Formats: sequence, structure tokens, C-alpha cells
Amino acid sequence: MPEPAAGTPIADLDTPALLIDLDILQSNIDHMAAFFRGKAAHLRPHVKSHKLPEVARLQVAAGAPGVCAAKVGEAEAMVDGGITDVLIANQVVGGAKILRLIDLAERARISVAVDNADNVAALSRAARDRSATIGVFVEVDVGMNRCGVDDAETALALSRQVADAKGLEFLGLMGYEGHITNIKDAAQRAEACRNSMAKVTAAAEYVRGHGVPVNDVTGGGTMSYDISGVYPGVTEIQAGSYALMDVNFRNMGLPAGRKEGSPFRCAMSLLTTVMSVPRRGVAIVDAGMKSITHEFGLPEVKDRPGITLARLSEEHARLDTSGGQAEALHTAGGQACGTLRLGDKIELLPSHGCTTVNLHDRAYATRNGRVEDIWEITARGKSQ
Amino acid sequence: MPEPAAGTPIADLDTPALLIDLDILQSNIDHMAAFFRGKAAHLRPHVKSHKLPEVARLQVAAGAPGVCAAKVGEAEAMVDGGITDVLIANQVVGGAKILRLIDLAERARISVAVDNADNVAALSRAARDRSATIGVFVEVDVGMNRCGVDDAETALALSRQVADAKGLEFLGLMGYEGHITNIKDAAQRAEACRNSMAKVTAAAEYVRGHGVPVNDVTGGGTMSYDISGVYPGVTEIQAGSYALMDVNFRNMGLPAGRKEGSPFRCAMSLLTTVMSVPRRGVAIVDAGMKSITHEFGLPEVKDRPGITLARLSEEHARLDTSGGQAEALHTAGGQACGTLRLGDKIELLPSHGCTTVNLHDRAYATRNGRVEDIWEITARGKSQ
Repeated sequence: MPEPAAGTPIADLDTPALLIDLDILQSNIDHMAAFFRGKAAHLRPHVKSHKLPEVARLQVAAGAPGVCAAKVGEAEAMVDGGITDVLIANQVVGGAKILRLIDLAERARISVAVDNADNVAALSRAARDRSATIGVFVEVDVGMNRCGVDDAETALALSRQVADAKGLEFLGLMGYEGHITNIKDAAQRAEACRNSMAKVTAAAEYVRGHGVPVNDVTGGGTMSYDISGVYPGVTEIQAGSYALMDVNFRNMGLPAGRKEGSPFRCAMSLLTTVMSVPRRGVAIVDAGMKSITHEFGLPEVKDRPGITLARLSEEHARLDTSGGQAEALHTAGGQACGTLRLGDKIELLPSHGCTTVNLHDRAYATRNGRVEDIWEITARGKSQ
Repeated sequence: MPEPAAGTPIADLDTPALLIDLDILQSNIDHMAAFFRGKAAHLRPHVKSHKLPEVARLQVAAGAPGVCAAKVGEAEAMVDGGITDVLIANQVVGGAKILRLIDLAERARISVAVDNADNVAALSRAARDRSATIGVFVEVDVGMNRCGVDDAETALALSRQVADAKGLEFLGLMGYEGHITNIKDAAQRAEACRNSMAKVTAAAEYVRGHGVPVNDVTGGGTMSYDISGVYPGVTEIQAGSYALMDVNFRNMGLPAGRKEGSPFRCAMSLLTTVMSVPRRGVAIVDAGMKSITHEFGLPEVKDRPGITLARLSEEHARLDTSGGQAEALHTAGGQACGTLRLGDKIELLPSHGCTTVNLHDRAYATRNGRVEDIWEITARGKSQ
């Protein structure tokens, strides 16, 4: 298939196709950058949500010193795409992965998280053998029950080990409060965020108090940047979802301090085609869970009042078109059903942007309803 | 990264890595082929589950006349991989897609499903313009409330239109009973399958009775092949999941006629690495919902009694290691937790194979614990 030329109307794209509205994207990036202007903490955007070097470059242009990634493969894609400073906000375990990390550290400023003494020793050996330097954050579990040490004493021991280890540079502590997204009430969510930040900043004070300098305390996300980003002692926020945004976070009114109404808008949508109008009140579009995810609820139909998404199969979505005036055009066995006709294009808004992006090889960057650029999602599937 | 050589032990692979056990795969393929030997109906395996030309070729070698695909892109990957007969068991709508369909029909025997008169006309125009022939099945909705016409009268009208249209060859009717997988009780599930097959075969009789020859009635899947595959008048079964199999179908004891105990075993697993042993009873492995899906429930830990999967994040899975003797080895801040140590390899069995395959660019074909081949999953992400 020839690639669509710049200027192609969205409606002429083959489907399913992932669309990113450049004006909304830039507005989201600018809004977040403005929040951090003049603050003690800075933003280091997480690329796991968009997996696109192009978006990472826009975020760096807006003031970020670098980005976060979840995996070595994501970091490789970002360095290949011109990003020069990547924190892999995760543990890197295993000989093959650590070798790739060292390779990357010869091309960019690279840091990782640790929560285990043997892992620190392995990272140090590999870095020393190649005269490389890896930045290291000691991760503290602040409530997720995932990675991270549980207490300040263990954080101190690991921090000392890192500070003393050749090939490693001890940068500080990391504490990610991802568990608070499950809390629906905004005030309770904000309080849980403060509790998490209290734990990691107290651990940082404890480490400092024992003579190990802590430069940075990193954590936070789109759901809490307005709380964690002004919490005393927190210096870096790892928000990622805000750039493309999704229906789940938008509906929760995230960040943490807001009762409702997110300041960010959904920049990403999935373009689909009506492929069947089989009966009154039903239309089927040509995208399902292999193109858009639903672990955080069903996607939303964009800008089509009275039409809702009722069910996702693997390659189909069933729309309920019985709302409003949708019945008017039904003709059994023919082309039209409700207000939708065979071949009509429908946009769906993802409920979870991070996993939806991970299904697609490319995204169409659009402005005013036309394609402006085609972006290869080079970090897609890079889970190694 | 250099590719692992043939003979590499599974445990030496970087992770997450999708593994396919060749002996189990062949056993599943052979079991299904044996079922259809001497039956009136034949098997046309659906490739949406594995997306691998290598597996499709094994299925054809076991007797299948060709395969089913869900999308034109999947069909292209199969024809590129040497498959010469593909039924796209789905509607193909839109000018760009229909052109690709015609391109494909110049390289292989291609058929599609239809449920709309305007779509039939568009397919006929495109095929006629290029002197191509597209095989066509008229889809009848047999209970899914998805694509397909609702009644025999509409099926007859569309069948006549196809039979009369240049460039199209009317092959018969299609009725897919995917909705019955939701029925837990085996007897009720079998009854629902028979009801679905009764509807599509009655429609076929009605079409025949009005002078339009119906060669094939196609439908069915792994969950019902033993019922639909022997239903009088059904000639072709589109089962796909049986080849790689997954925990959800295995636990339901599918196919439809069985109360428990699937005859198929899970050939596919996801190899992961223990990346953190942060506290007593908890180990974290390096794969989450970006490598293994959970819309049909959490994946299962393979061959590790006492260890269960408790939660999936995007790139992490939390294992509960508190069962059995798992407490013995815990050392806080050190390497071991329970029976698991940092760097240990753990295999997870997918709960939904079809969507899990769609997250991966390649699979490692293994035998007796070693890599035998590396397969590019060429139909991954081919939702267009």
C-alpha cells in the first residue's frame, strides 16, 4: 500500500488507524510544562504511554531534561530517535539486558532503578568492565506492593552500596504511587499521594542523615503530578499519560487534586469504518480488542451523540445506534442503518492509551482533519 | 541483539519471550485433523489465533484445504507465507481494502463473507474490472448480534445477487456461533450450538429450495467443532484456538460436547524473568499486559506449584509465592524470596491466546526445552 500523502483527509485513511491530533497534543504538553515552570520539581515524561520519539522530542523541547522508559527496548528506541537522557524507571535484571544497558550508556545518559543488592553488584561489574557509568535510583515501595524496598534502613544500605560501587552513580530515590489511580474520591486520592510521597521523602532524609547525598527524589504520574509535584523534597515527576490522554483518566478528572474535569484532552483516537449495518439499532465497525484495549472499560465513540459502543470482539466493535434520531435511515439488507451507512468513518477514544498504542505500528499525526505526518511507533512491543 | 542459535536452552532467552512447544502444537493439530477424518465436514483453520504462516502450513499439511483469516492484512501475510487458499471470514468494506483483496485474488484462491447488497455490488465491480474472481459466502447471524443477515429471505436475496454478479462466485452460507463460549454449562452450550447450526442450515435449505446451489455451510470454532462439525448440512469448521490453545478454553473443557477436560493442551507460554523479590511472599516478573492479555482472566503460572499470579501491571506481574514451601528462602534486600531467586525464569500460560499473540513480533519454536526455530509473527497487528 502506498503511504497516504501529507494533506490526506482523515476520512480517506484505511482503517483501523491510530490518529493523534497535533494541536491537542501540543496543548497537553504545554499545559504540563507550564505547571512545572518555576517549581522546585521538574517533569521527566514517561514514554511508555506514547512510545513515540516524535512526542518525546516535543516534550524535551517544552523543557524536559530527558524521559523515562519502562524497558531497555523502549530506551533504545528513544536514543535511536534522538533523546539523550533516559531513566529506565524499572529494574534491569539479567546478563543480556544489562549488556544492552551498557551499550546504551555509551550513546546517552542512562539511569535505572534498583531494589536488590545482587542486581546492584551485577550492574556495577558490567559498567566497570566497559568503563561506563550508569545512574542509579534506589526504589522504595510506596504502596503498590510491586518493586521497591520496604523501609528506609534497606534503602540506606542499597544507597551506600550504589554510592560505593564503581561504574554506578547514585542519584537518589524513586517512589511510584501508581496504586492511587484506583481511588475514585479526589480528596482520598490526594491524601494517599501525600502519604506515598511522605514515605519516599522520609527515606531520602534518612539516607542523607547517614551521610549519603541524595540529589533527586523521582516518582509521580499524570494522576498525581499536582500533588506529588509540589510535595517538599520531591524533585522529579514521571507523568506520561497526559500527552495523549485517555477516557479513563479524563473521566476520573485526574490529576489527584481535582474533583472532576481533567485539564488534558484526548489527543488520540482510533479511526474505524462501518463494515456492517445488519439490523435496526446496530452498526459494526472494523476494530476490536486487537486495535483498542478495554481493561479500563470500553472505549468511547467520539462526537456522535446517541451512538455508543456496546461490545468489543477481537476485530469488531458493535455500536448501539438506537439513541436519538438513529433509527431514521434503517433499510434492511441495504446500505443504511440508523444514521450510519456502510463505509462511514467513526472515531473511538481509547479508555487506556498506554496499552492501545502498544497494538499499533504507526500513528497518523493530524491537524484540522488532515494527515500532517506518519509516525512509526518505534517502541511498540519493546517489552524486552 | 544477535538471534539465539538453534539449540539454545529456553532458560537462556531474553524475556519476555513467547514460546511455542512444537510437540504439543503438532499433537493439537493431529488431534483435530483426526476428528475430521472420514467426516462430511472438513476443517479450515482460523489463523487469527496464531498469525503464523508456519503454523498454517502445518495445518494444511495435516489436511486442511486452506485457512480462514479475519482481515485482508492477515490474508496477505498467509499468502506471502505460502498459503494458497484463504477465506476472509469477515466483511471487506471500503475501496482500498477491496483493491488489496483483488490483488490477493491474483495470487491465491480468495473468498470473503458478505451481509450487505451494496458491498456485494462494490466487490463485483472491483473484481470484474480486473477479471478476477472472489468466492463469496453470505453470512447469517446465528446469535452473536454482530455481522450477518437475520433471516433466510434476506440470505436468499443476497445469495441470488452474488450468484448473478460478475467477478463473484457464490460458495454458500456462513454462520459463526461465537456467542456460545459464554455459556458455562456444557449441555446448554451444545444445545445453543445446535440451535445456531439449525438456523444457518435451514437458511441454506431455503436458498437451495429457491434454485440457488449452496456448496458449503461454514462456521464453528474450537469451542464447538465436535457439535457443529457433525451437524447435518455443515460442511466446514473454522476452528483456530485449538492449535496453540489457552487456559480459558482449556478450563472450560471445550469443545461444546465435553463437560470438562479439553483434548488440547497449551502449546504457548510466555517466558519471564524474576526481576524483583521485594518482600516475603512476593516476586515480580518482567511481563505485564503489554506482553500477555487478561480480558478472559489472569494468566496461569506454569509448573510451579504454590506460586500464583496475583496482578498484572503494564510491564510487571506480581506473583504470590506464599503457598507451599515458598517461604523458605526469603532474605530481605538480598537475592532470594521464597523458592524464587532474582533472574529465575517463570513461564506464564495465556488466558487468551489470540490477543496475546497479537502483542509479539516473534515466537520461539521449542522442543524438549530448546529453541528449534524463530518464527516472525507476520500477521501480528495486521488489523487492516
